[in-house]
Amino acid sequence: MYNVALFGAGRIGQIHAANIAAHPDCRLQYVVDLYQPAAQALAEKFGAQVATAEQALNDSSIQLVAICSATNTHADLIEAAARAGKAIFCEKPVDLSLERVERCLATVKETGVTLMVGFNRRFDPSMAQLQQSLAAGEIGQTEIVTISSRDPGAPPAEYLKTSGGLFRDMTIHDFDMARWLLQEEPVTVYASASSLVDPAIKALGDIDTAIVTLTCASGKMAVITNSRRATYGYDQRIEVHGSEGMLAVTNLPESSLVKSSLSGVVAQKPMYFFLQRYAEAYRLEFASLITHLKSGTAVTPGGEDGLQALRLADAALASLTSGEVVRLKA
Amino acid sequence: MYNVALFGAGRIGQIHAANIAAHPDCRLQYVVDLYQPAAQALAEKFGAQVATAEQALNDSSIQLVAICSATNTHADLIEAAARAGKAIFCEKPVDLSLERVERCLATVKETGVTLMVGFNRRFDPSMAQLQQSLAAGEIGQTEIVTISSRDPGAPPAEYLKTSGGLFRDMTIHDFDMARWLLQEEPVTVYASASSLVDPAIKALGDIDTAIVTLTCASGKMAVITNSRRATYGYDQRIEVHGSEGMLAVTNLPESSLVKSSLSGVVAQKPMYFFLQRYAEAYRLEFASLITHLKSGTAVTPGGEDGLQALRLADAALASLTSGEVVRLKA
Amino acid sequence: MYNVALFGAGRIGQIHAANIAAHPDCRLQYVVDLYQPAAQALAEKFGAQVATAEQALNDSSIQLVAICSATNTHADLIEAAARAGKAIFCEKPVDLSLERVERCLATVKETGVTLMVGFNRRFDPSMAQLQQSLAAGEIGQTEIVTISSRDPGAPPAEYLKTSGGLFRDMTIHDFDMARWLLQEEPVTVYASASSLVDPAIKALGDIDTAIVTLTCASGKMAVITNSRRATYGYDQRIEVHGSEGMLAVTNLPESSLVKSSLSGVVAQKPMYFFLQRYAEAYRLEFASLITHLKSGTAVTPGGEDGLQALRLADAALASLTSGEVVRLKA
Amino acid sequence: MYNVALFGAGRIGQIHAANIAAHPDCRLQYVVDLYQPAAQALAEKFGAQVATAEQALNDSSIQLVAICSATNTHADLIEAAARAGKAIFCEKPVDLSLERVERCLATVKETGVTLMVGFNRRFDPSMAQLQQSLAAGEIGQTEIVTISSRDPGAPPAEYLKTSGGLFRDMTIHDFDMARWLLQEEPVTVYASASSLVDPAIKALGDIDTAIVTLTCASGKMAVITNSRRATYGYDQRIEVHGSEGMLAVTNLPESSLVKSSLSGVVAQKPMYFFLQRYAEAYRLEFASLITHLKSGTAVTPGGEDGLQALRLADAALASLTSGEVVRLKA
Repeated sequence: MYNVALFGAGRIGQIHAANIAAHPDCRLQYVVDLYQPAAQALAEKFGAQVATAEQALNDSSIQLVAICSATNTHADLIEAAARAGKAIFCEKPVDLSLERVERCLATVKETGVTLMVGFNRRFDPSMAQLQQSLAAGEIGQTEIVTISSRDPGAPPAEYLKTSGGLFRDMTIHDFDMARWLLQEEPVTVYASASSLVDPAIKALGDIDTAIVTLTCASGKMAVITNSRRATYGYDQRIEVHGSEGMLAVTNLPESSLVKSSLSGVVAQKPMYFFLQRYAEAYRLEFASLITHLKSGTAVTPGGEDGLQALRLADAALASLTSGEVVRLKA
Repeated sequence: MYNVALFGAGRIGQIHAANIAAHPDCRLQYVVDLYQPAAQALAEKFGAQVATAEQALNDSSIQLVAICSATNTHADLIEAAARAGKAIFCEKPVDLSLERVERCLATVKETGVTLMVGFNRRFDPSMAQLQQSLAAGEIGQTEIVTISSRDPGAPPAEYLKTSGGLFRDMTIHDFDMARWLLQEEPVTVYASASSLVDPAIKALGDIDTAIVTLTCASGKMAVITNSRRATYGYDQRIEVHGSEGMLAVTNLPESSLVKSSLSGVVAQKPMYFFLQRYAEAYRLEFASLITHLKSGTAVTPGGEDGLQALRLADAALASLTSGEVVRLKA
Repeated sequence: MYNVALFGAGRIGQIHAANIAAHPDCRLQYVVDLYQPAAQALAEKFGAQVATAEQALNDSSIQLVAICSATNTHADLIEAAARAGKAIFCEKPVDLSLERVERCLATVKETGVTLMVGFNRRFDPSMAQLQQSLAAGEIGQTEIVTISSRDPGAPPAEYLKTSGGLFRDMTIHDFDMARWLLQEEPVTVYASASSLVDPAIKALGDIDTAIVTLTCASGKMAVITNSRRATYGYDQRIEVHGSEGMLAVTNLPESSLVKSSLSGVVAQKPMYFFLQRYAEAYRLEFASLITHLKSGTAVTPGGEDGLQALRLADAALASLTSGEVVRLKA
Repeated sequence: MYNVALFGAGRIGQIHAANIAAHPDCRLQYVVDLYQPAAQALAEKFGAQVATAEQALNDSSIQLVAICSATNTHADLIEAAARAGKAIFCEKPVDLSLERVERCLATVKETGVTLMVGFNRRFDPSMAQLQQSLAAGEIGQTEIVTISSRDPGAPPAEYLKTSGGLFRDMTIHDFDMARWLLQEEPVTVYASASSLVDPAIKALGDIDTAIVTLTCASGKMAVITNSRRATYGYDQRIEVHGSEGMLAVTNLPESSLVKSSLSGVVAQKPMYFFLQRYAEAYRLEFASLITHLKSGTAVTPGGEDGLQALRLADAALASLTSGEVVRLKA
């Protein structure tokens, strides 16, 4: 039985709390949140206790901490948890600063604790099956990875201010998917982007519409198209073209009802919200962590995956700023 | 908070136990099952107690019983629970004998308790949306209801022996869907059927492949096609043709992965098992019951729905036996 | 080179004229139509001559006649052409009277000429591929054939008056498909039907909405659902369920454009009109006739197919009239 | 009636010959091809005469010439036809050299004749409908155009040698589509590409797998992914994401047959060959030319479209060679 301390009782913390509580091998022991009413409510719902970070980390019965607090607390909490010898799950990103991430991961490495970074899409059943089919050679050699990733609507300006910008906040998931599917580190990054969706985003100096191309030394390539707004729902598609075929993950409709009439043949929109679209992914992500902890096998995605995705995000931003292709060290 | 006693700790009882336990307004208090180890395991999993039927029904703190035990116990348990003044959820069917169902419902009526019969498909999000679209007149007047309902594989002969036969065991769900979508009671039933799937089924005098046609006085019609085996998974489709269009619920694939290669464009099979396909339906079914109990509004589907579906099943069997069309009283 | 005389310069005659003219092994020699301007226009368009029936049938250079004139002329023209020793293509039906068809086919048999009856759907590429897949055993043994056949809109009352009614005019195509896919003659026919679409149809004593069930001695079954009106286009689907899988022909959309927006994911309607949906089928039908004539192999569908489909239509009508199941001689 | 002279009796010439001959307002008068047997066969098939280029161009009864000969003859023939005052249809490209195209178009301009360049995809019914929907504002402002364009298999090395390379030979169609859908000239071009498909292509210094990104001054963007080989057929998809929705043209399957079995739900592959996929586009392309000639309205796509697409191809090649983004003059 793993006793778990959860940091952060917000939207994403609530998702993980439910998955922790429902897992047969876990017990949600502590909920930590500076905003006490949220911590209290979540703790009560799942029979846990409210605690401070110190209490949670100093309790030797806690084997695992789940970090779902604000981004700017992640690196510090990871380090503190690592020094306390806890296994760690941390929502992406580790930090918005590459240097800070590197420092944090060094600490993790020193202490030898397990760290999983929350790239939840790897655990979506359709995307996991895509990756397994690729790995099994079902379409031969991978040639082109195409990722369409579009949010249903732009987040509030308040959120965007501290988000790190489109590439570090949103595209970072797609960079992780690209690396995971290419199975090779990109050597060039080229980004085009515009502010077409929301003047508030432009005012912040951020972008909302982007195309990013990645190339690998072997000739494999990936392209990501992003938008902060898709009127028809949460658009999450991946397509991999290989020497012997193509694998594609399409959107999941809100229901399977289809209406045919004078207006056409109308199917349902894709699920609107990431919490709905990836509910199963979050559950399987946590279950995967526990499985690996139990068997002592390596956990993925780990800190290095978080670091590499951030490197690609930074390179994309550099490309956008300079208008030039950015070359990465192999 | 509703305290619930669950009767039956088998496969379907486990589904309901989890839904009861997860419902914010319910507490799973008792698990009753003659097979003690099953009762014990389920009770432990959800922090409930094992009890006898008498203990559960005599405990005045229990407001609701969920009957998921063997079919031949349903009617007796419903009557006992009704006399004890409990609200009742009962898995279909109330009984395989029309006469016994009528007697049982008379008792329910006398006692005035609430009874929901477990026609779970009404709560499937796609099918519920279909019904709401129909009710909202989205395709005008209903003309033809087409139900394709095929199990992935035949159940074991042991189960079939006491199942009541295809029409009472499997088609009964489709009869309920037909009534619910037609919004009018059928006046004729005609059934054709064969034993093509499994010689064991034929040996039992049962059938495994069927087409049943229902007509209503207004001219609306429904047709059901059944098979005990669909190699490609659990085939559960409904189509309604109306004066202004068509509504269709298609199958739900196991994932959204699609592979294109020399062999064609291959999508995933429909979900294989009813527990997977209707997991959400079971959850919403129970939630609907609680919502209605809380608000004191009428619960559907009720005992009358169970009775009418069984009448159609019996009529289908009479049609098959005689080779003639069976006319029902309006 | 086959010299062809075409009878009937109406809508369907024009389709066949174009296919005859475009066939590398055929020459459209004569167009025969009582309405001279139509004959004249069509003949000119394809470099043919206008002729009377006598001229066309007495011209020994004519090897093939294509009968696309009014239904009530078919049987007489077939007999005349047969006696003149011509190979014959005749649009369905041979006649609306079973007795007249039998007499006509006797003449054909005596003369030994080739007769193809225009059940064009057998030549639709999707449906032909379905039948070939079945014949190749791709889904094992056939169990249930489901045919959805709905016209985009009801024909004018004028046409309906002499049409022979829904079963002989429209369902007859579906009866042919059912026979072709079942590969066994049905032994029972049960029809339910209503007049829901158009009061004019009801006034004529005809029906516009129907479900017909066919069963075979082996236990195979087929069900046909018909409507004279489908607001979303020409609905032409077939599904065959077998012991090892299911084959389905879906509708063909007017284009492959799909629009996703707040209103849903909207695909195009099925092709609206039979001339568009079956354009390729008409072309391939005629090509098949020529191929068989050249090789001296048996032409299908032949007169017997026309006769059997009409028998099923008559049985359906008898079932509807009596409200009972009709049993056919094996 | 337009009398037409056709140059080139090869594969694509045969397509146009059939469309010319079938057009009610056209007569195929001459077929010109240095390879006499091909010219002879084609002329015979459609009742035309074989002629030399001089004969055809000097015949004042010829109003229109269709140039379907080898690429390196296009510019000369266009100029000769223009000087002879003929309206001109020319298969793409006008020439592989930008300078030569400019010179050729100057001549066309001087003479004032009509020139249509054969970007056939604009006339594909699905793609034309996509463009019309965009133009009608159905998805608001265009933001991202995504073009997937993959040939079923690589052409022979012999062909590739004189093809001008992937961008000028194959991507040029996609550049035209991008321009047509963006409705704005791109200002930057960035191309990544690899030789992954066929060593023979690499040996020629050519590429077979590419991603090209185009950006416009307004912020609109387009991305093209190409491969010389798609095992599953001819992959021709376009997707446009806009401020109010998404429009997508999907592939057209070879038939609408779908097979469900243990192996999954298998739909047909996309049509394999461009002549099948775009047969209707070729027909409508020619019909559009005639419509515009008759009405005296402007023909599109014209020479300028051919020129701009070639500019993009050259820019893509420059980008690939330099590894840098190429900026175009507005």
